[in-house]
Amino acid sequence: MKRKRNILSADPALVHTVRIKVRFSEVDSMRVVWHGEYVRYFEDGREAFGEHFAGLSYRDIHASGYTTPIVEMHVEYKRPLHVAEHATVETRYVPTEAAKICFEYVIRRETDGAVAAIGTTTQVFVNDRGEMELSMPEFFKEWKRRWNVL
Amino acid sequence: MKRKRNILSADPALVHTVRIKVRFSEVDSMRVVWHGEYVRYFEDGREAFGEHFAGLSYRDIHASGYTTPIVEMHVEYKRPLHVAEHATVETRYVPTEAAKICFEYVIRRETDGAVAAIGTTTQVFVNDRGEMELSMPEFFKEWKRRWNVL
Amino acid sequence: MKRKRNILSADPALVHTVRIKVRFSEVDSMRVVWHGEYVRYFEDGREAFGEHFAGLSYRDIHASGYTTPIVEMHVEYKRPLHVAEHATVETRYVPTEAAKICFEYVIRRETDGAVAAIGTTTQVFVNDRGEMELSMPEFFKEWKRRWNVL
Amino acid sequence: MKRKRNILSADPALVHTVRIKVRFSEVDSMRVVWHGEYVRYFEDGREAFGEHFAGLSYRDIHASGYTTPIVEMHVEYKRPLHVAEHATVETRYVPTEAAKICFEYVIRRETDGAVAAIGTTTQVFVNDRGEMELSMPEFFKEWKRRWNVL
Repeated sequence: MKRKRNILSADPALVHTVRIKVRFSEVDSMRVVWHGEYVRYFEDGREAFGEHFAGLSYRDIHASGYTTPIVEMHVEYKRPLHVAEHATVETRYVPTEAAKICFEYVIRRETDGAVAAIGTTTQVFVNDRGEMELSMPEFFKEWKRRWNVL
Repeated sequence: MKRKRNILSADPALVHTVRIKVRFSEVDSMRVVWHGEYVRYFEDGREAFGEHFAGLSYRDIHASGYTTPIVEMHVEYKRPLHVAEHATVETRYVPTEAAKICFEYVIRRETDGAVAAIGTTTQVFVNDRGEMELSMPEFFKEWKRRWNVL
Repeated sequence: MKRKRNILSADPALVHTVRIKVRFSEVDSMRVVWHGEYVRYFEDGREAFGEHFAGLSYRDIHASGYTTPIVEMHVEYKRPLHVAEHATVETRYVPTEAAKICFEYVIRRETDGAVAAIGTTTQVFVNDRGEMELSMPEFFKEWKRRWNVL
Repeated sequence: MKRKRNILSADPALVHTVRIKVRFSEVDSMRVVWHGEYVRYFEDGREAFGEHFAGLSYRDIHASGYTTPIVEMHVEYKRPLHVAEHATVETRYVPTEAAKICFEYVIRRETDGAVAAIGTTTQVFVNDRGEMELSMPEFFKEWKRRWNVL
């Protein structure tokens, strides 16, 4: 799970935060959010990120002729979330030179700011012939240039 | 929700039963299956029916060039289902002369045979140009002939 | 599905509208929202209603010592919803003298205002001994008085 | 994600395999299983394991006065799963001396035996006062003795 970080970079990281609300259907019999639902929260975060830093939403990627399936996901659960509770999903772009898209997530409870969960995902690029791209697609290079990230 | 039934018909109705097991993730904070999960159980029943009475599974329909979206669904909840409990989904084909597929469902707890829920769904036929068919597609007529139903 | 409506009543119905956004995980292989996900949208609508007309949210009901399980649900699907699309869920309280809570829902696409689905739910009152209440609990009578509905 | 393995141990590891079938509702608009659904498959595997090696099912743990929330999860996605496809979930107990339950999972497509995904989960013990146990509960020690694992 180690990822190269450009620690010399003075550039502010690309981070976006979105607010979510826990649905009744997401809570399990322990009266806390079922651990699998956090995958949806990460997806909420990722999608909001991709709309905010325009060009990386699901529809943008699709329009570019690619899909970006998740190939790896890691989650650490710190504190529970409860029904009807508000939380924030902070989604941070993790620079990489590989033909991948890496994100880190921090989910915080709104009431006390406590971290509920952290996680990472890695996505690859699959072209419209169903093949995984070993080098970065042009649309993604363009996105990186626009937002000034590696 | 009234549906014509061919009560003179001597033919045994087309009915198929499949066994399911309640997942932990399907149970809500009341410690019973969340009401929305029954939609999946109906789908389990419908899919098992379509494989048993060959020619009406999701893949059969797709191979025929159609999709059959649900246009109406009705559910009555009678008794709760609990975590790790086994249940049966009985799926009954409801004859109709319309260009529709109608099913009735009965979900029973395996322990005591009690009815947990009953329901109905109605599906229509959409062709590969995305248009709803007003008359029955040939593949479905063929299916009805094969299984001797109206 | 017929429900008595107090058509002489001049009172404005209790209606609340909440905005939702279609998640990627809610879309099926037909590239439209899977029909079972509408159950979550209704729940979003109901919960937002219960918070707006204070005293009927999940947590309010729970604090009153009751649960209000769904005993009946009906959905009609009119037009599809697509990934990342915004929609509105309009939730309308349907007056009844029975010990029940009845709602009607209208889900509309935000782009064109077209109705995507309509539906109804009926809930009953279960006390903290797990028994269904045949008469209206005091907290619900109080809620009705406060909001001036039958 | 490295975990000590008792490689000198001659004992056959505790492994259990359960068969699953992909539901239509689990498939996304890419026509493959949505990555979040694998969390349910892991849970299916874990639950089947806990019933096979008696004493570690959800209900056994609950009856012992504990819950065992997931504190960490890792998934690597190798190949897609498709609608109505059968797969197997192999669940392997990973010995540890800590007050934790660790599992490894391998999900394989039934058609070609290809690995669809691998993963790990870590669970801790929470007692009925809601506190995390720093040492192994007696019921779990007993379970380990019964099945002869560390």
